[in-house]
Amino acid sequence: MEITRPLDLLNASKDKRVMVELKNGKQFIGKLLAFDIHINCVLDDAEELENGETKRKIGKLFLRGDTIILIAPSE
Amino acid sequence: MEITRPLDLLNASKDKRVMVELKNGKQFIGKLLAFDIHINCVLDDAEELENGETKRKIGKLFLRGDTIILIAPSE
Amino acid sequence: MEITRPLDLLNASKDKRVMVELKNGKQFIGKLLAFDIHINCVLDDAEELENGETKRKIGKLFLRGDTIILIAPSE
Amino acid sequence: MEITRPLDLLNASKDKRVMVELKNGKQFIGKLLAFDIHINCVLDDAEELENGETKRKIGKLFLRGDTIILIAPSE
Amino acid sequence: MEITRPLDLLNASKDKRVMVELKNGKQFIGKLLAFDIHINCVLDDAEELENGETKRKIGKLFLRGDTIILIAPSE
Amino acid sequence: MEITRPLDLLNASKDKRVMVELKNGKQFIGKLLAFDIHINCVLDDAEELENGETKRKIGKLFLRGDTIILIAPSE
Amino acid sequence: MEITRPLDLLNASKDKRVMVELKNGKQFIGKLLAFDIHINCVLDDAEELENGETKRKIGKLFLRGDTIILIAPSE
Repeated sequence: MEITRPLDLLNASKDKRVMVELKNGKQFIGKLLAFDIHINCVLDDAEELENGETKRKIGKLFLRGDTIILIAPSE
Repeated sequence: MEITRPLDLLNASKDKRVMVELKNGKQFIGKLLAFDIHINCVLDDAEELENGETKRKIGKLFLRGDTIILIAPSE
Repeated sequence: MEITRPLDLLNASKDKRVMVELKNGKQFIGKLLAFDIHINCVLDDAEELENGETKRKIGKLFLRGDTIILIAPSE
Repeated sequence: MEITRPLDLLNASKDKRVMVELKNGKQFIGKLLAFDIHINCVLDDAEELENGETKRKIGKLFLRGDTIILIAPSE
Repeated sequence: MEITRPLDLLNASKDKRVMVELKNGKQFIGKLLAFDIHINCVLDDAEELENGETKRKIGKLFLRGDTIILIAPSE
Repeated sequence: MEITRPLDLLNASKDKRVMVELKNGKQFIGKLLAFDIHINCVLDDAEELENGETKRKIGKLFLRGDTIILIAPSE
Repeated sequence: MEITRPLDLLNASKDKRVMVELKNGKQFIGKLLAFDIHINCVLDDAEELENGETKRKIGKLFLRGDTIILIAPSE
C-alpha cells in the first residue's frame, strides 16, 4: 500500500475494520464499506464504543463526513 | 444491496425505517421518504426518541442535512 | 403528495402551518410562505413556542436556513 | 406584498424597522437599509435590546449574515 | 452616502473609525483601512476594548471575516 | 527548503514526524505520509499525546482537515 | 506601505514578526513566512504565548486559516 494522498489510506482500508471518532467524542468501529470526498462513510457490523468497550451494536451505519475527526484502520 | 458509495446505503433504506441522530444529541426514527446530496432527509411516521423510548410522535419531518451525524437502518 | 426529494415536503407545506426548530433550541410555528434551497424560510402568523405554549407572537418572520434543524408540517 | 421567496420579505421590509436576532442571543432593532444574499444587513438608527429594553444606541450597523438567526419586521 | 448594498456602509466607513465585535465577544476599535467580500478587515490604530475601556493598543490589525459579528461606524 | 506558500511547509515535512493539534485540544504525533488542500492528513506510527506523554499508539491515522488547528514539524 | 485590500497587510508583514490569535484563545508569535487566501499561515521561530509570556517554543508552524481570529504585526 503506497499512500500519496490522504484518501489512499481510506481506499486501502475498504472492507477492513476501522475506528472512527466524531466531533462529539463518540467512537465507532466497523468494516468500512464506502466513503466519498466529503468523508461521508458507511460502516458495516458497526459498534459504538465507550471507554474501549462495545456500548451498542448498530449493523450498517451512515456517518456524515463533517462530523468525523479521525479514521484509524484497526487491523 | 451492494454499497460502493455512502449514499447507496441511504438509497437502499428508502421507504424503510431508519434512526437519525443529530448534532444536538436528538434521535429520530421514521420511514426514510427522501434525501439529497446535502443529506437533507424527510422521514414519515417520525418519532423523537429519548433513551430509546418514544418522546413524541411527529408524522412527516424534514431534517436539515448539516445537523445530522449518523443514519442507521433499523430494519 | 408524492415526496421524492426532501424539498417536496416543504413545497407540499406551503401556505400550511409548520413547526420549525432551530439549533439554539427555539421553536417557531407559523404558516410557511416561502423557502429556498438554503432552507431560508418565511413564516406568517408566527409564534415562538416554549414547552409547547405560545411565548410571543411575531407576525411575519424570516428564518436563516443554516440555523434550522427540522421542519414539521403541523396540519 | 406577495412573498414567494424568502428574500421577498426582506425586500418588503426595506426602509422599515426590523428586529434581528443573532446566534449569540443579541437582539437589534433598526431600519433595514440594505441586505444581500448572504443576509449581511445594514440597519440605521439601530439599538441593541436586552429583555425588550434599549441597551445601547448604535446608529448605523453592519451585521454579518452568518451570525443572523431571524429577522422580523416590527412595523 | 447612499446605502443600497451592505458593503456600501463599509465603503463609506473607509479611513474612519469603526467598532468591530467578534464572535468571541471581543471588541476592537480602529480606523478601517481595508475590507473584502469575506469581511476580512484591516484596522489601523486599533485598540481592544473591555467594558468600553481601552484594554490594549495594537496598531495595525488583520481581522478574519468569519469571526466578525458586526461593524459600526463610530464617527 | 524555501517556503513561499503555507503548504510548502507540509511538503517539506513529508515522511518526517510532525505534531498535529486538533480543535478539540487533542495532539497527535506521527510521520506525515500525505496531505491535501483541505489539510486532510495521514500520519504513520501515530501516537496521541496527553501533556506531552504518549497516551495511545494508533499506527496509521487519517485526520480530517477541518478539525486541525496547527501542524508543527518535530524534527 | 499602502493597504487597499486586507491581504496587503499580510504581504507587508512577510518575514516580519506577527502575533496570531486563534479561536480557542491561543496566541502565537513568529516570523510570517507565508500565507494564502484561506489565511493558512506559516510562522518561523514561533512561540506560543500565555499571558504575554513564552509558553513553549515551536520553530516552524503551520496554522490552518479557519482557526485564526486576528493577525497583528508586532514590529
